[in-house]
Amino acid sequence: MSETHESPRLFLRLTFGEGHKFGPGKAELLERIDRTGSISGAGREMNMSYKRAWSLVEEMNALFREPLIESSRGGAGGGGARLTQAGAAALAAYRALEITARTAGDDQIAVFRSLMRDMSGGK
Amino acid sequence: MSETHESPRLFLRLTFGEGHKFGPGKAELLERIDRTGSISGAGREMNMSYKRAWSLVEEMNALFREPLIESSRGGAGGGGARLTQAGAAALAAYRALEITARTAGDDQIAVFRSLMRDMSGGK
Repeated sequence: MSETHESPRLFLRLTFGEGHKFGPGKAELLERIDRTGSISGAGREMNMSYKRAWSLVEEMNALFREPLIESSRGGAGGGGARLTQAGAAALAAYRALEITARTAGDDQIAVFRSLMRDMSGGK
Repeated sequence: MSETHESPRLFLRLTFGEGHKFGPGKAELLERIDRTGSISGAGREMNMSYKRAWSLVEEMNALFREPLIESSRGGAGGGGARLTQAGAAALAAYRALEITARTAGDDQIAVFRSLMRDMSGGK
């Protein structure tokens, strides 16, 4: 019946000196690259330009000890991309952090939610 | 010595159907309104236009059962603003959620951090 404010979603963003960030957008991009095998394909699914998707990949690869994404441009198959072991590990740690934070913060989220208007009924 | 990636900061954003959000920016605005007693003053501290600060305040007030900010425009003292009890409660719940998430997620943040390059030494 009333979906609107029933279950707030919690998004996390990690920031590291110098303005580096890792949050929902990069995590989603990694997941979509993993599934589609393509940086531009993953970006397209997120309504992101080719340039933007590549720039995020380059930013991530520079931020970690090992690149998170391995890609081959062009070639017979038109190039392709896949997550490295480090990419899978970073994504897993981020998703685990989300679940942990959500679970631990459940009571506080409920308090926050209780202060909010229920908009679903137009009240 | 190496500050850059020593301690990632964790930022949280709660989202509620229909694109409503509450995150670091609104929390900071509430805090600054509480301290300065002024919406435009708080916005100015955050390099935010008068219009933007007011629009965020209106958005927050509409989202909660009770307004989070009470304001009087103009008048002898030039108007002023203060957090309501609901405003203080929402801010407190958000800050408590941050601490809870950060504490609970400490291990996962450390895993994430361990995958990252140490940029402080130029390595």
